Amino acid sequence: MSKTRVEAFSDAVFAIAITLLVLTVAQPHTYRNLAHELARQWPSLAAYIVSFAVIGIMWVNHHSVFTHLEHVDRGLLYINLLLLMTIAFLPYPTGVLGQALAKGQGTRPAAVLYGVVMAVNACAWGWLWLYASRHRRLLRADFPEKERAMATLLFTWGVVAYTLSVGVAFINAYAFLALQGALAAYYAFDPISRRAARRGQGELADHQTTGDSDLAV
Amino acid sequence: MSKTRVEAFSDAVFAIAITLLVLTVAQPHTYRNLAHELARQWPSLAAYIVSFAVIGIMWVNHHSVFTHLEHVDRGLLYINLLLLMTIAFLPYPTGVLGQALAKGQGTRPAAVLYGVVMAVNACAWGWLWLYASRHRRLLRADFPEKERAMATLLFTWGVVAYTLSVGVAFINAYAFLALQGALAAYYAFDPISRRAARRGQGELADHQTTGDSDLAV
Amino acid sequence: MSKTRVEAFSDAVFAIAITLLVLTVAQPHTYRNLAHELARQWPSLAAYIVSFAVIGIMWVNHHSVFTHLEHVDRGLLYINLLLLMTIAFLPYPTGVLGQALAKGQGTRPAAVLYGVVMAVNACAWGWLWLYASRHRRLLRADFPEKERAMATLLFTWGVVAYTLSVGVAFINAYAFLALQGALAAYYAFDPISRRAARRGQGELADHQTTGDSDLAV
Amino acid sequence: MSKTRVEAFSDAVFAIAITLLVLTVAQPHTYRNLAHELARQWPSLAAYIVSFAVIGIMWVNHHSVFTHLEHVDRGLLYINLLLLMTIAFLPYPTGVLGQALAKGQGTRPAAVLYGVVMAVNACAWGWLWLYASRHRRLLRADFPEKERAMATLLFTWGVVAYTLSVGVAFINAYAFLALQGALAAYYAFDPISRRAARRGQGELADHQTTGDSDLAV
Repeated sequence: MSKTRVEAFSDAVFAIAITLLVLTVAQPHTYRNLAHELARQWPSLAAYIVSFAVIGIMWVNHHSVFTHLEHVDRGLLYINLLLLMTIAFLPYPTGVLGQALAKGQGTRPAAVLYGVVMAVNACAWGWLWLYASRHRRLLRADFPEKERAMATLLFTWGVVAYTLSVGVAFINAYAFLALQGALAAYYAFDPISRRAARRGQGELADHQTTGDSDLAV
Repeated sequence: MSKTRVEAFSDAVFAIAITLLVLTVAQPHTYRNLAHELARQWPSLAAYIVSFAVIGIMWVNHHSVFTHLEHVDRGLLYINLLLLMTIAFLPYPTGVLGQALAKGQGTRPAAVLYGVVMAVNACAWGWLWLYASRHRRLLRADFPEKERAMATLLFTWGVVAYTLSVGVAFINAYAFLALQGALAAYYAFDPISRRAARRGQGELADHQTTGDSDLAV
Repeated sequence: MSKTRVEAFSDAVFAIAITLLVLTVAQPHTYRNLAHELARQWPSLAAYIVSFAVIGIMWVNHHSVFTHLEHVDRGLLYINLLLLMTIAFLPYPTGVLGQALAKGQGTRPAAVLYGVVMAVNACAWGWLWLYASRHRRLLRADFPEKERAMATLLFTWGVVAYTLSVGVAFINAYAFLALQGALAAYYAFDPISRRAARRGQGELADHQTTGDSDLAV
Repeated sequence: MSKTRVEAFSDAVFAIAITLLVLTVAQPHTYRNLAHELARQWPSLAAYIVSFAVIGIMWVNHHSVFTHLEHVDRGLLYINLLLLMTIAFLPYPTGVLGQALAKGQGTRPAAVLYGVVMAVNACAWGWLWLYASRHRRLLRADFPEKERAMATLLFTWGVVAYTLSVGVAFINAYAFLALQGALAAYYAFDPISRRAARRGQGELADHQTTGDSDLAV
């Protein structure tokens, strides 16, 4: 399986999952007082926006990580499928959380469900990175050794952060949703890529024709 | 992130959103008098057709705009995700508006919801264009300076037009839907591309091998 | 807009519509006597299979037609969007027809709805072909003049056949569904491509490196 | 139709089907005791995970098989569409089986339905392989003759195994689901590819530039 094909398949799953999210927004129960009914459903919209941002930003970071890989093997393929499963599943907890918040019932179990899915997702990211980077198994030769340790630290921190966020879910579902938005925003400025970008600027002349300019994003 | 990949992801979201629209057409409540039941749901079909046209034409114009970009950066990536969110969300107001018109209940709130989504969409388009074109940040060298001002004017007018359409939504939902169809038809003959096309004809010899013939559409 | 991109977008809509069809198969109302309940829903499955074949075969023929085009213009783009709309909409009449047959209620209105969508689809195919082939506007230079007339005849016959099938829908929905399956099977052996293939064999040496071997399918 | 395009279309159907699966997970009926309600639906989640693995692994193996083909013809195209139909349909039995297990009603008919779809799928795989490999019709010249017999044996064994699994469905739905998971895991280590991979290692120098390194997955 070529790296390109795995990336194309992953991109398709990201694109489908992000677009399917709209099906999770709760339909109005009544059209008699629609303005009021739609206003009541704002938490469903908030959950939609957070999940859209989560999947969109993960798509960008998925691309960043794959940029650093020389090739893929069967093991990586299946870890990547596990990662995609947690992303393709996200519309379910999004819908449940949105409905629970709109109804004002079961908000904490719904937030815990969302949190657990995100924690499993963080583990899948960590596993994928460790699998690819240990002994530099699948890394490109030009990926600097000292960034490897940095990235490992960041993925480990992701597992810790998302696991802790489950704790917040037990306390308050709105705080949990805000925290998920904040974590997504943090990853929107993903340090791995930013560092690579800075490095990339310095070495621009070497890479310009090899597609490495991708790193600059 | 390469421009090609952003375009492919955007195309996928456009294709999925446009195809998912079919799920918003209201199912018959009864099969006993199906002919009559289906006839009653024509507004749901009308909303489907308008939204299909809106997304289809936006897809064409999205491509036009990206043709004029030299490359993409992380900022553009996220503005583009915001733009895609408003498009991926469109099936929701489409379904609500179609149902409201078919039921004859809540038609104005439903139209306002649709109008607000389209106004946010117009803002996202405007933001994307300003971000890309200010100081010619991401524009191709061959994009003429005087068309830049023209395009900025057109995107600003889009924001105004779609914001004003929300006002129509407060008055009559059918008039609103017709207006949305008319605005989509206007953008189907997008002036930026037509101008570029005319220019493109004159410079055909230079561009023929560089993929610039795309401009001719 | 390059031809490749239009084809990729069309392929995506075909792929999504064909996969979304599964959502139209009626869910069991009760799990108490599930074997019997599932057996009752066989018409829903039959409608699924016919629509899957229809979309799959249209995908193949869409590719055939685009193989004969030199390039695309804005007009073709919008006729193609109209064509895609009739395909993306097909899951709706499929679901309605399957449900109507399973319930034994409203079968003829449901079949008429399906028939009308297919007739509009046949018109869109005919329009697309006439638009592309009149005065050889968008045709490749190597597409033989006498096959052009033949193809025009075939598309016209398609419009007639699908329009007549609406008449069958008024009489019996099962006969209608069988007829749709038969028409799809007829197009599975699309004469345009077969002729082109035969011709292609003879000219194999010339085309082998230009991607024209596509015609051989 | 070029091989690349058939693969791209197939990949899209795999990606959409695998992502649509999430819509089959049963929605909570009540949000009052949501934790308990969600816990009750674990079989729905188990069915989701098994089907996700099934489709993901089939995607990998679909690619393996197509790697060994020199080109595709119209016959293969339609057998491939049949194969894709069984995959695109999988969300339906997945949803039914998950619901039946969660309700504790109709579990065996639901498992039989799932089993029959998988058996038809195994037949489609076998047919595709026989069609492509008989008299080496569509095989690449470098695919070793003795692996052809081996592969035929494996596809035949697949038909037998999946047919027998229907028998297990008549006895116990949980055992059936576990068996499906085990069969998927078996195919995750697909012998055809592994053998090709081993061979590929030895011949690495020859193939490195021709894309054959795909075999190494």
